[in-house]
Amino acid sequence: MRDTYHDDLDAISTSLVEMTSMVGSAMSRATTALLDADLKLAEAVIAGDEAVDALYRDIESKAFDLLARQQPVASDLRIIVTSLRMVADLERMGDNAVHVAKIARRRYPGSAVPPTLRSTVLKMGHAAEEIVAKAGSVIARRDIEMAAQLEKDDDVMDELHKQLFTSILDDQWSEGVEPAIDITLAGRYYERFADHAVSVARRVVYLVTGERAPTAG
Amino acid sequence: MRDTYHDDLDAISTSLVEMTSMVGSAMSRATTALLDADLKLAEAVIAGDEAVDALYRDIESKAFDLLARQQPVASDLRIIVTSLRMVADLERMGDNAVHVAKIARRRYPGSAVPPTLRSTVLKMGHAAEEIVAKAGSVIARRDIEMAAQLEKDDDVMDELHKQLFTSILDDQWSEGVEPAIDITLAGRYYERFADHAVSVARRVVYLVTGERAPTAG
Repeated sequence: MRDTYHDDLDAISTSLVEMTSMVGSAMSRATTALLDADLKLAEAVIAGDEAVDALYRDIESKAFDLLARQQPVASDLRIIVTSLRMVADLERMGDNAVHVAKIARRRYPGSAVPPTLRSTVLKMGHAAEEIVAKAGSVIARRDIEMAAQLEKDDDVMDELHKQLFTSILDDQWSEGVEPAIDITLAGRYYERFADHAVSVARRVVYLVTGERAPTAG
Repeated sequence: MRDTYHDDLDAISTSLVEMTSMVGSAMSRATTALLDADLKLAEAVIAGDEAVDALYRDIESKAFDLLARQQPVASDLRIIVTSLRMVADLERMGDNAVHVAKIARRRYPGSAVPPTLRSTVLKMGHAAEEIVAKAGSVIARRDIEMAAQLEKDDDVMDELHKQLFTSILDDQWSEGVEPAIDITLAGRYYERFADHAVSVARRVVYLVTGERAPTAG
């Protein structure tokens, strides 16, 4: 009985890791769609969120099932409840990728990203991919050290986010209001994506060490 | 034993309702701070988030405690796990109020809201207050009808959010880029605040009816 139980727990963990891959891939493709003004790719990211939501519901129902059937206590209980919260973070990360893709779609056939900001947006996309890949490792291996690295990636993301605003608010900005809005929103989506990944990693750290980090802003 | 148990469940529900009041009040004050360029009020909202986070942790630990001690099944289990998720939504709503207050602080002694948009922002603030007040009633009385009303308020919020963008993108817009960014972000914070309130209400509906609404965007 306990063996099946721990198999089920492992299955949840595996699905969470899979979900990090899915939302990482979604954000990667959303970034490409945004930079290349690729409508088809943007549509694919938007449509692909259904699969993320389906996995979300699957993990959720597995977790509930375990809670109900096995009545776990102590650390097992914490793992399952924490999984339920991580899956919610991951679902939101998928939404953020969709939001980026929707900006690309809204501006098509134009590009939402002015040439001067391509490099910063690309770096934000890369930072997002790296941070979620690390979140996957943190879940899979309960790797506390990786969680610390991930926090540093989030600092990089915050720095890039600041750079975006500096560019938009610079006297040299000649793109007008509409691109400023697109970039403001895109910047926010990348930053939220990273924040949720930080939140996922911190939940794992809390499981392993019992030490709780402050809530992510 | 069961009596204490249900008292504990009720206490969690009462705390959740209290949290709706706290974040509703925070958003109300943040809106005033934003419209009046009131630095003191903005600072108070920002500092006040500590109390929201403290209540969050308190509800969380009570819920865990119940799960561990009572090993609830079926509907009681669903109530507790759902509470854990609602408290996370409410915590994020508090963060959104803080984000609005921070815009007010950043632009002080100026105002982040141009005169032409004061009315729209005020309406968004009011919609946010009404929606979270309804979310409180939905939790307190498991009021499904109120939950339906709340969804309509969210439609109003979405409409106001669109109006904001229409104004910013209008040829008549003469405020420049910086106010456009402030308003874009503020609009997003109000809209997220309302989305989380919708999410809270839907979780209650799911508890009562077993019918799940699609995930909020």
